[in-house]
This record gives sequence, C-alpha cells and structure tokens, in this order.
Amino acid sequence: MIEELDAAPALDVSRWLNTDSSLTLEALRGHVVVMECFQMLCPGCVMHGLPQALRVYREFDRSDVMVIGLHTVFEHHEAMQPHALEVFCREYGISFPVGVDRADAASPIPRTMRAYEMRGTPTLILIDRKGRVRARHFGNVSDLRLGAEIAALRLDQI
Amino acid sequence: MIEELDAAPALDVSRWLNTDSSLTLEALRGHVVVMECFQMLCPGCVMHGLPQALRVYREFDRSDVMVIGLHTVFEHHEAMQPHALEVFCREYGISFPVGVDRADAASPIPRTMRAYEMRGTPTLILIDRKGRVRARHFGNVSDLRLGAEIAALRLDQI
Amino acid sequence: MIEELDAAPALDVSRWLNTDSSLTLEALRGHVVVMECFQMLCPGCVMHGLPQALRVYREFDRSDVMVIGLHTVFEHHEAMQPHALEVFCREYGISFPVGVDRADAASPIPRTMRAYEMRGTPTLILIDRKGRVRARHFGNVSDLRLGAEIAALRLDQI
Amino acid sequence: MIEELDAAPALDVSRWLNTDSSLTLEALRGHVVVMECFQMLCPGCVMHGLPQALRVYREFDRSDVMVIGLHTVFEHHEAMQPHALEVFCREYGISFPVGVDRADAASPIPRTMRAYEMRGTPTLILIDRKGRVRARHFGNVSDLRLGAEIAALRLDQI
Repeated sequence: MIEELDAAPALDVSRWLNTDSSLTLEALRGHVVVMECFQMLCPGCVMHGLPQALRVYREFDRSDVMVIGLHTVFEHHEAMQPHALEVFCREYGISFPVGVDRADAASPIPRTMRAYEMRGTPTLILIDRKGRVRARHFGNVSDLRLGAEIAALRLDQI
Repeated sequence: MIEELDAAPALDVSRWLNTDSSLTLEALRGHVVVMECFQMLCPGCVMHGLPQALRVYREFDRSDVMVIGLHTVFEHHEAMQPHALEVFCREYGISFPVGVDRADAASPIPRTMRAYEMRGTPTLILIDRKGRVRARHFGNVSDLRLGAEIAALRLDQI
Repeated sequence: MIEELDAAPALDVSRWLNTDSSLTLEALRGHVVVMECFQMLCPGCVMHGLPQALRVYREFDRSDVMVIGLHTVFEHHEAMQPHALEVFCREYGISFPVGVDRADAASPIPRTMRAYEMRGTPTLILIDRKGRVRARHFGNVSDLRLGAEIAALRLDQI
Repeated sequence: MIEELDAAPALDVSRWLNTDSSLTLEALRGHVVVMECFQMLCPGCVMHGLPQALRVYREFDRSDVMVIGLHTVFEHHEAMQPHALEVFCREYGISFPVGVDRADAASPIPRTMRAYEMRGTPTLILIDRKGRVRARHFGNVSDLRLGAEIAALRLDQI
C-alpha cells in the first residue's frame, strides 16, 4: 500500500496533450507536482476538480508548481477516447499538460490509476520535490487546505 | 426567418434517449414545450443550460410542461456520438427525453438546428400549446424570466 | 386565518425609505405587488431574500410589478432602528421603497407582520391587482417558481 | 509607512466579544494571527471577508492559527455600535474573538485601523509568530493564496 513519503509510481501514459514532449516524474524532480486525475464525463471532475486545478495553475508560479492532468478512464472507455479528450480540453480551456493513463488489457482500471491505488475520480495527488507522494484527495478538498498543502511542499525541507 | 408565433418546425431526430417512443411536436400539442438544445462538450450547456432545464423539469407539473433535450452537434461530431451522449446523460442525471438532431450530409449543422435558425448552444426554445415558437434564448436567460415565460404560456389564451 | 384570495391587510408603517410619499395598498391597486419582508440583521434575508427581490426589481416592468420592502423587526429591536436601516439600504443598493413596520407596545412582533400572520423572515408576499394575498413564502422560494407566480398574477383574470 | 516585516502595531480595542479576556498581540506571540478587519454593514465583508475568515477558523488548528475579528468602523458610526455588533455576530455565527477598534475623537477612522494604514474594509492582515505584519489584503484574496500564505507563516523560520 502506498504510504506517505513513498516514491510516487511512474506515470504510465499512452499519449500527452498540451505539451510537445512526454513528461516523467523524474524530469519533474525538484518541482512540486499537482496532479489532477479525472475523467472527462465525470461531473465532479468537471464541476469541481478541474476548475480547482485551473485555479492552482493560475495562482502559483508555474516554474515551481507543475500542474498536470491525468485522464484515468475506468468506465465508459469508448465514450472518452483521446480525440474526445482533446475536444474537451480545448472547450474547457484546460491548457496544462494532460496525460492519457495507459489502458490495461486485463482490467478496466488503467495502469497509473492502479499503481496509485486511486479510489475514483476526481483524485488530486501532490508530489514533493523529491518525487514522493505527499497527499491524495479523492473527491473535494477545500482551496484553503490545498493552498496550504502546496505551500508546505514548496517550503519543505524533509 | 422564424417569427414569433410561427409554427415550430418539426423535430428531425435520428434517435431518442430516455423515452420508449419517439416524440413529435404534433403529439405534444396541448402542452407547453421547453426544449433545451445543447452539445455535451459545450461548457455553457453543462454549467448553465442543462442545470436550468433540470430545474424546470423539477419545478413544473410534468403532465403540462414537457421538458425535452435536443443534442444539436454542429462541431466536433466524432467526439459527441450517441453512445457518448448516453453516458453523459446518465452521469449528469438528465432524465428527460433527449433527441439526437439528425446529421445533414451537406452541412456540419444538423437539420433541426438549421430549421430553427439557431445561432449556437445552449439555445432554449419555448413552444406553446398550439405548437408555435414563442421564445428562443441563445446563451443565458435568468430563472425569473424563464419562469415567467413558461407561466405565461401555461395561461395563454392566444 | 389569512386564506388565499383574502384581502391583503393594510400596511401599518411608521416610516418609508426610498420614496417621497407613503405607500398604501389601496394606491397600488391595479399593480402586482411583491413585498419582501426582512430584518437587516437576518442572514437569510441578506443572502437570499433581498438579492432575489432586487432581481425581481430589475427583471420586471416597474410600472406594473411593484417591489417593496417591509422591515419587520421582531427581535433585537435596538440594533435595527430606522437610521441603521437607512445605512443598510444604501450600502446594499436597495433602491425600491422600504417601509418600517410599526412597533407594537404590547408585543415584540410589529403590526403588519402580525396582521399577515408571518412566521419569520424572510417572508415574500404576493398581492394581486385587486389587493388580495396570493402567496406567502417563508424562507426560500426558487426564482423559477417566483417568476411563474408573478407572471400568473400579471395575467390573472380572477 | 508599514513595511513587510515591521512589528505589528498594538491592537487598540475598546471592547472584546466572544472572549472572556482581552487579547493582545504580545500574548498571541508564537501563533500565526489572521485578523479580519470589517464593518458589520459592509457588503463585501458580509459576503466575502467574514465567510472566508470562518472557513479559516474551521480549517486550521486553532491552537496554532488564531483568527480574530476587528470591527473597524470608519463611517456610519451610530449604526454600528457594539450592541448591534453583538447581535450581528450571534446571527452570522461568528464565534471567534472580535475586538471593537477604539474610536478616535479627532477622526472618523478608529485607532488600530489608522495604525495599520488600512484603506478600507474588508482588510485581512496576517501576523507571524514574532508579531510582524506579513500580509495586508484590502478587498478579496483567493482561498488558495490565503491558505498558502498561512501555511508559509506556520512553517516560517525567519
């Protein structure tokens, strides 16, 4: 089971949107990473999770706090294929990088979602400068608390 | 051009969701019809138009005020096919009948959307008991005004 | 007990704000009257009732739909005297006429509030063109329903 | 002029609500102090500033982050006397300590407000564990940013 301070599992992504090159957590080492895991047809993601991720993207210094999306489709796969996701991101103004979590032939749950033991969507994951998982929020988390957690990771000396 | 009190053009629908039988305006004659025209990947529809249509559906007597949706896809057609629409309606709790506006081989604009001369989505159309177009709102309309317009059509003696 | 269609009791008002002359229901006969009964230190009034009354004031034809406020103080009387009410109305942009319900030496409940048998604040009362009470809403009422009720009274032939 | 890291001026308060004993910044040394400066008849305070202060009060550990209110009346003084403030706090559920900024015979601006060079209400002031002013927000500040600033002061080693 993933414990606080465990190394964040690698992102297993089949395709990236809104970025010219693939992203890896290794390459993001040294940054605070805010990862919004969502499905494009999940109302809680559309109404709460993604707008909050966009607020984080606008509020913090992007050279330090990296906001990325992860499209973790675990149901209705045919309705949420990458082309539809592209349209969705364009229409909703989601301009930060979004990775498509790699499908697993043996399970409806995609690979990164499984590696992080997520319970559903939206899930927001915070990863520290050393690449360790520091928080996982399934469902809603308040902006006050999220802002505090991001700030703590920015100042973290652990 | 469609004028106030013109007969509402027929619904040219390729498929209905949330209803066992196809709906026609002729069959709805005698009712006040509130038709929410939307695209499932249109943020204004998801954030404002459809929640308002659901409020109308909950507030008024359903045996008198018929709320129907019309999926008028005029862009990104491949991303908004009927199967994805089914998932969308289930996830967002849209339980009133929704028709899929029939695609036109010669134009990106589907047939009913063209017949009603809609300018985009969301568009909310009110049809009176005699089957006449009485209001077309492109974009947002306040609940106060919409409530008043629906009430006026319910009491209408024209 | 006040019944639907009963004649609306007279307004017993000690002072009017936002109007040069006193208002009476007799003088408003022929109009639809929307009366928002509130206390300036009641959170439900400040957050919901008064903003809704202002929306009605903006949405409908003011020569036909008269919006008036009634300051029905039934608790904490010393904290909500007319001078404080004046400041409150100016700060909150309440520009429709507001009457101060007349205090009753024998009761904490002011006179008009008692005559209308109100249960608390906010209470929204609708009075038809013939001066009859047609609706009393204690607490929240949706904009859709309120818009419909006002429209019905505008068209009413009873 | 107050600069970042200047010692926070003492609170000059004529009366405290919601606390048995008077509060001083000296006594709060070692805590992070979040001070919401408001007027009870200021709509921006009622709609935004005070609800945000209540969210801070609920979200953070109260033994570490002290939320206090300061009633800085600089206009309409007669309408916002301490008794009315007591009613206001009770009705709006403001349960953290609230000080009444001391009136100044020579100016409409009360003493603490003047000492902090506030520009109006709402103003939110952050004071660090060593009693230094670290942020002053006149008007709205986002919950994300405020959460981050509070967290930074909690971890501060300056």
